Amino acid sequence: MTEIAPGVWAAALTPLNRNLSIDHAACAEHIRRLHADGCAGVAALGTTGEANSFSVAERRELIMHLGRESFPAERMLIGVGCCAAPDTVALTRDALAAGFHNVMMLPPFYYKPVSDDGLFAAYATMIEGVNDARLRVILYDIPPMTGFRLGVELLRRLHDAFPQIVVGVKNSSGDWSAMEATLAAMPGFKMFAGSEQFLLPTLRAGGPGCISAMANVTSPALAELYAAWRADGADALQAAAAQARAALQGFATIAALKELMAARTGRPSWRRLRPPLVGLSADDAARLHAAARGAGLL
Amino acid sequence: MTEIAPGVWAAALTPLNRNLSIDHAACAEHIRRLHADGCAGVAALGTTGEANSFSVAERRELIMHLGRESFPAERMLIGVGCCAAPDTVALTRDALAAGFHNVMMLPPFYYKPVSDDGLFAAYATMIEGVNDARLRVILYDIPPMTGFRLGVELLRRLHDAFPQIVVGVKNSSGDWSAMEATLAAMPGFKMFAGSEQFLLPTLRAGGPGCISAMANVTSPALAELYAAWRADGADALQAAAAQARAALQGFATIAALKELMAARTGRPSWRRLRPPLVGLSADDAARLHAAARGAGLL
Repeated sequence: MTEIAPGVWAAALTPLNRNLSIDHAACAEHIRRLHADGCAGVAALGTTGEANSFSVAERRELIMHLGRESFPAERMLIGVGCCAAPDTVALTRDALAAGFHNVMMLPPFYYKPVSDDGLFAAYATMIEGVNDARLRVILYDIPPMTGFRLGVELLRRLHDAFPQIVVGVKNSSGDWSAMEATLAAMPGFKMFAGSEQFLLPTLRAGGPGCISAMANVTSPALAELYAAWRADGADALQAAAAQARAALQGFATIAALKELMAARTGRPSWRRLRPPLVGLSADDAARLHAAARGAGLL
Repeated sequence: MTEIAPGVWAAALTPLNRNLSIDHAACAEHIRRLHADGCAGVAALGTTGEANSFSVAERRELIMHLGRESFPAERMLIGVGCCAAPDTVALTRDALAAGFHNVMMLPPFYYKPVSDDGLFAAYATMIEGVNDARLRVILYDIPPMTGFRLGVELLRRLHDAFPQIVVGVKNSSGDWSAMEATLAAMPGFKMFAGSEQFLLPTLRAGGPGCISAMANVTSPALAELYAAWRADGADALQAAAAQARAALQGFATIAALKELMAARTGRPSWRRLRPPLVGLSADDAARLHAAARGAGLL
């Protein structure tokens, strides 16, 4: 079994039909394009993909559809994390059945405060519930949404208990010092930065790469940065990535990225979001377009 | 159709079998006991009931089981809120099919920040998705878990759009000034305090009552307080409720309440919690027992 590929991963957006169901064909096409544009891989059904706004049944259906495509397993990561362990187990089994052994697993995120003992027990319940040696788990540490951190002690405890299965973490804390501490404390444990803004620092500190929402619209440039990360021009390419990111400042990220995809492709399915997320107002869209043109994104 | 009963509601704990599945018989027995002890009603599958640690399928099954009991509909409130609107719609339809028209509905709670427009759209999607004139919704405002507030403007907008359906809110903010402001701004809108510690102030400000976790173990005393709330002794009874509550201070609330239920009944199914929640350590349980005996809870 091939290991999860290092490099730049895109946290894929999810295009929607008029009735806000998932546009499966456009979703698969988008993933193919991201792979072709040089992404190491694509994380489907993550936060950026609005996964938690889809029912368990809808997520199972998308996983089944993606399984019919010929995506290489080492270049796919399926978000499976739900509040309730049995739902997470069901989605993870579906991912494995569809040929995807890499999953990104949120902790149960409703209750807080939670103890490390409770989070360890929850993850153990989910992994033992799946009970499949092929499984590879990237833990998903996203305090802006969950309200709590997955600390290094917990990561280490999970990796020690399931060394073949719990292979890494996506750190979406936005806190570089926390990422640096994880990379230093757990060499070999695959800590992906949750944003391309930490790509170069992550690689220089021994990490495998990043999982990025911006990569939906900047994958060729980010692939170039990854390819050149040991070269002299790397810092300039990282600065260019920061400039692209700055064009979205002040806009809701997922809505803004979908607006850019709609503008690029002319497909209205990119402009739709599931509540509680909402699309940009016409004024905001016009301002975004101007900023995006200035940054070379349109 | 009888309106949701005013008074003290218990946010019921959920007893679990050895494999952490729901002990349906013990659950129904507990609800019967709470009704008999003078609770106006019982909220099942709320936060205290660990609802979000059960899969959608497990929640549907419990609702079906409760529907076979002869609980009066106006004395039952079913928690149906999930992250994803279609799951909430399915659970709400199940509640109605089981004879329960009062539901407690969380907002979609994964994404943040969220706008009032997005929250309104999410609630409208869920209510229109259920599409049943019998439905009565108590909105569920619990910022310690969701990370955001349901403001008065949003409550008013939802009540105006669905005047027969969106009839109230459970305010679990713990912030009396916010509760007071809601009661003043929306007379007739049923704002239940999310804790018995605000019962008397809520009633005096025109509210219908409270939905309380403590009521799992103090329902007779709270029923007495509700019955006497206009009488001279009311403040002393409210102070006694505060004293009972103080016995649990420093312990995780749900774990402590389950420990007290286990100690009272001798049934181990009360001592089990679903991860990420964990039971009390033996030392903590001993300390809790001592405090509870001092407060007359054991």
